[in-house]
Amino acid sequence: MQPRILDAVNSPRDLKVLTEDELAILADEVRQEIVAVTSRTGGHVASSLGAVEIILALHSLLDCPKDKIVFDVGHQAYAHKLVTGRREEFKTLRQYQGLSGFTKPAESPYDVHCSGHASDSLSIALGLAKARALKGTDEKIVAVIGDASLAGGMAFEALNAIGQAQLPLVIILNDNEMSISRNVGALMKHLGFIRATKEYRETRDHVQDFLEQHGKLGEGMVNFGRSMKDSLKQFVVPNAMIFEQLGIVCTAPIDGHNIHTLRETLSSVLQADGPVLVHVVTKKGHGYGPAEADPETFHGVGPYDIPTGKQLKKSGGAPSYTNVFGEALVHEAEANPDVVGITAAMKGGTGLTKLGERFPDRCIDAGIAEENAVGMAAGLAVGGKKPVVAIYSTFMQRAIDQMIIDNAITNDDVVFCLDRAGLVGDDGPTHHGVFDLVYARMVPGMQVLAPSDEAELVNGLHTALALGGPFTIRYPRGAAEGVPLPEEPEVMEPGVARRVREGSDVAILAFGRMVGQAARAAELLAEDGIEARVVDMRWAKPLDRTAIKNAAQTKLVVTIEEGVVCGGAGEGVLEVLSEQGLAVPTLVLGIPDRFVGQGKVDLLFKEIGLDPEGIASRIREELA
Amino acid sequence: MQPRILDAVNSPRDLKVLTEDELAILADEVRQEIVAVTSRTGGHVASSLGAVEIILALHSLLDCPKDKIVFDVGHQAYAHKLVTGRREEFKTLRQYQGLSGFTKPAESPYDVHCSGHASDSLSIALGLAKARALKGTDEKIVAVIGDASLAGGMAFEALNAIGQAQLPLVIILNDNEMSISRNVGALMKHLGFIRATKEYRETRDHVQDFLEQHGKLGEGMVNFGRSMKDSLKQFVVPNAMIFEQLGIVCTAPIDGHNIHTLRETLSSVLQADGPVLVHVVTKKGHGYGPAEADPETFHGVGPYDIPTGKQLKKSGGAPSYTNVFGEALVHEAEANPDVVGITAAMKGGTGLTKLGERFPDRCIDAGIAEENAVGMAAGLAVGGKKPVVAIYSTFMQRAIDQMIIDNAITNDDVVFCLDRAGLVGDDGPTHHGVFDLVYARMVPGMQVLAPSDEAELVNGLHTALALGGPFTIRYPRGAAEGVPLPEEPEVMEPGVARRVREGSDVAILAFGRMVGQAARAAELLAEDGIEARVVDMRWAKPLDRTAIKNAAQTKLVVTIEEGVVCGGAGEGVLEVLSEQGLAVPTLVLGIPDRFVGQGKVDLLFKEIGLDPEGIASRIREELA
Repeated sequence: MQPRILDAVNSPRDLKVLTEDELAILADEVRQEIVAVTSRTGGHVASSLGAVEIILALHSLLDCPKDKIVFDVGHQAYAHKLVTGRREEFKTLRQYQGLSGFTKPAESPYDVHCSGHASDSLSIALGLAKARALKGTDEKIVAVIGDASLAGGMAFEALNAIGQAQLPLVIILNDNEMSISRNVGALMKHLGFIRATKEYRETRDHVQDFLEQHGKLGEGMVNFGRSMKDSLKQFVVPNAMIFEQLGIVCTAPIDGHNIHTLRETLSSVLQADGPVLVHVVTKKGHGYGPAEADPETFHGVGPYDIPTGKQLKKSGGAPSYTNVFGEALVHEAEANPDVVGITAAMKGGTGLTKLGERFPDRCIDAGIAEENAVGMAAGLAVGGKKPVVAIYSTFMQRAIDQMIIDNAITNDDVVFCLDRAGLVGDDGPTHHGVFDLVYARMVPGMQVLAPSDEAELVNGLHTALALGGPFTIRYPRGAAEGVPLPEEPEVMEPGVARRVREGSDVAILAFGRMVGQAARAAELLAEDGIEARVVDMRWAKPLDRTAIKNAAQTKLVVTIEEGVVCGGAGEGVLEVLSEQGLAVPTLVLGIPDRFVGQGKVDLLFKEIGLDPEGIASRIREELA
Repeated sequence: MQPRILDAVNSPRDLKVLTEDELAILADEVRQEIVAVTSRTGGHVASSLGAVEIILALHSLLDCPKDKIVFDVGHQAYAHKLVTGRREEFKTLRQYQGLSGFTKPAESPYDVHCSGHASDSLSIALGLAKARALKGTDEKIVAVIGDASLAGGMAFEALNAIGQAQLPLVIILNDNEMSISRNVGALMKHLGFIRATKEYRETRDHVQDFLEQHGKLGEGMVNFGRSMKDSLKQFVVPNAMIFEQLGIVCTAPIDGHNIHTLRETLSSVLQADGPVLVHVVTKKGHGYGPAEADPETFHGVGPYDIPTGKQLKKSGGAPSYTNVFGEALVHEAEANPDVVGITAAMKGGTGLTKLGERFPDRCIDAGIAEENAVGMAAGLAVGGKKPVVAIYSTFMQRAIDQMIIDNAITNDDVVFCLDRAGLVGDDGPTHHGVFDLVYARMVPGMQVLAPSDEAELVNGLHTALALGGPFTIRYPRGAAEGVPLPEEPEVMEPGVARRVREGSDVAILAFGRMVGQAARAAELLAEDGIEARVVDMRWAKPLDRTAIKNAAQTKLVVTIEEGVVCGGAGEGVLEVLSEQGLAVPTLVLGIPDRFVGQGKVDLLFKEIGLDPEGIASRIREELA
């Protein structure tokens, strides 16, 4: 068996001695390694396979970690991990205490920032360039950003500033939508913007060849108003012009799987004395048939069978919260023609696919543009509609101001459905939805519901639409509890909790998924003769004042939530106790004041003491 | 004396019977009224004077409130208020319980949304257009947005979506930077995008005339890398192309002070079957000499003398927190070459002007682009610099995700200086900075300081830079307390409070400006024989556990902060009491769970019971 080149690559320096042919072989080996590992761990397969040559070409030319590569989102950076001294640890990808699925400075000096939230790479890169200018050093700075991330307002703000600053900086636009059409070249000629350099002409010729070899050409460019994907394409198609207008020199599109072309172009633009955007065309999932054929599934995928690409899902079990929500939303939309769903590039992830099929006009995918999604919701509400905004808890952090100023201040009828609330598992700290109970609760007039099972989610959505006003529902990633769904959804009474278990020694006031953990902890306590009441609080706002008052008659009031303690619902409970003049020992449990890592949620719960045994022992200690 | 046309205008309908000459006279009367009122109340004079003709032309053509005008920021909408039945109330502009300085639906059916935060109008307008499409109605929708607001990412996200949706919608780009150059037309011809309509050619001719009559022409277009203002101009200059590329038809620039031209163009574009951007050139402060001459001062101005434009400022008194901060930052920057200041279009407002004069390279104005400002800070920190981000508390709500994911997660050395924290007064609910103690406190590892006077602000900034890690300092708008400043700033010990007044009946734990209020309340309580200890908590995170423990030995622990109670520092104190197992009656005071109105801060404090008498009486009640 031929020894792998990959096994001799211990740092990017080792790439510099390789020929371009060897780099191409290395690219194949990297792909095989990515598939081998992710078939067991799951991961962002399609993006990472698409970016292999870009990463190898960059590292063969740059001198990292002195030079900086800033990966947008970072889920395309697996090849980067493999060639920066993490080949062995790569097997632990996305596992508890293993390698992160994103770039992470704590993990390697080659990682510049904690990526995970789209559209931030250009700002980071510009900040680095400004620091360099102040220091008078000469390191190279490269940002790698996908076309979808460009729709985010933050990226645009940065482009505008990059055009202004005119500092040397290479932006690699990793365009994997394959939306390049011959018209780009034509328009660019028309524009008179094309740089008359030798390289420019050469790369353009390459592109023409590339385009000749690929289908879907000559379909015309301007075809607005279709799906979001189309829209993003249109944004990308004429981007050269937009970038040039902003003062950023832009290359013609080049083949992102050709090491030679990449190195040729990059070695040229890395010498530029201002910002340059390199338009690189790649194919998601490149080199692995099943991912090429179905890049959407292989965007973020669980463990899979390599030959077939079939996912090794555990069959059976409860439906996911996401699916239950998706079905419930269709049901509500059928009953009320004013209901409109909005998501931000996560139609499948938030369960809105079904609504889109059933009512295409009433399902809006805003792309990676949470601010506009929430702003549009306000406009729809003013226009008499009932917007339901479904966004992951962690990504709604991008639109908190819009929740407050565009929606809540006018008491709009708008429902924010925050999926992936709490700990999300393998994606780790950038993706945990642990702040929403705080930021939703602080908004005046916001009603905040944390269903403890899928039946409450169904009733909660119905309640939100029935009651009106700004409303937030937050629920976790993954499988629900397996309880039966209501035949017809019911309106829940605001601020009314539900007693799940009787007990008079301790009262555990639990929010969301923590109700199940609390019930299991109560079982453990019962073995020690401690009778714990478990209350499903349901509402983080308004809180159930009676349930809290009753809880104060036990020896200890425990609050438990899957969110940060600082500013969370537990502190809200303390405030209600204070207001009612009730003195009772209390214990506030939740996510501690640090960024929690990645891995199976049960392991994470255990680490932070939110597993049933952890909860029970904390309670035992308090009572002792 | 000639009766005013304005006095006969009770609704926009009354504009429809006026000739264009009469509308021009009305414009003058509106200007006089704006100047007459704002000379007493203060306000956003320059912008509102610049938009008078745009507003009159729109209302003469539209049928509001059925038709919708969405004003971005809304501070340019005074003329709109005057012609929509609020002529008499206009005298109460920005006063307690008077008319808002922004559009506000609760005030009038002619106001579409609560404006105040830039760059949201396009999203609202698009939401309205989507609602209209679903309803099958035919109201017109117009957004009025200034060029500076276009730099905000949210506006770009919306433009991208508007280009996609292709719904009828008129965007009025109110370009008051006077940055139009002849090259625009040339480039547009080059582009081949120019619509070959009669109106298009006509308006273009108008512009040519306009341009002939104005100076600063032929200066060439692409001149990147100067000040932010220049950058915005460059963004605006070639905007036609950008908008067209995004699928939005764009007119050539027209004269925004010519009622006839405006009406001609608008009546044409209001019939369009897709999105159209009307590029309108206006002059800030138009028609009032002092505001024309100094639009920056007259952007937001206090009461002034009409003939001279001189501000009627009370002389003397303490310096503002802003000025103290600005001086302190220069001092720190002199001592440490790594310190870099960043602001977002509020260089004067946040006190960064002096830093910009002293160290132009180390003072970055990101424009209305808070996300990029905070993202750049992360890049600067990674590059070894010590960024100090000075943004108003309310506008930092736009970049909370970036505080968490781009800065705190990597424990960056970054200082967030949140000016205008707490109640801001006349600007009202959209501008109060009442959420920062919550959103800063929830961020893992964030240190949060609320100085109670300017000396603590100076020491606080020094402390933040000395200690490192993510750090937030929040301080109010307006005059500081008048205490002497330290000769040399000192490093404060984290989580250590300061006892301001001795007392053992009650302990008032106060944050920021509330320390002064608490001390005055304590005086009142002393008259009743109640001895209240007053503690300047300083740190909202970490909290002083010893001070809290000691407080628990009194009969009542009171917390008081100038921020919302839900999730605030007071609840944090309760959590510390809970954790230490201390049972004591508590009273948590702060901003209630509703949007507080506008007006002098003292009146607002009184309304919500945060005035000394209010505080004292709440404490008396609790003790009774």
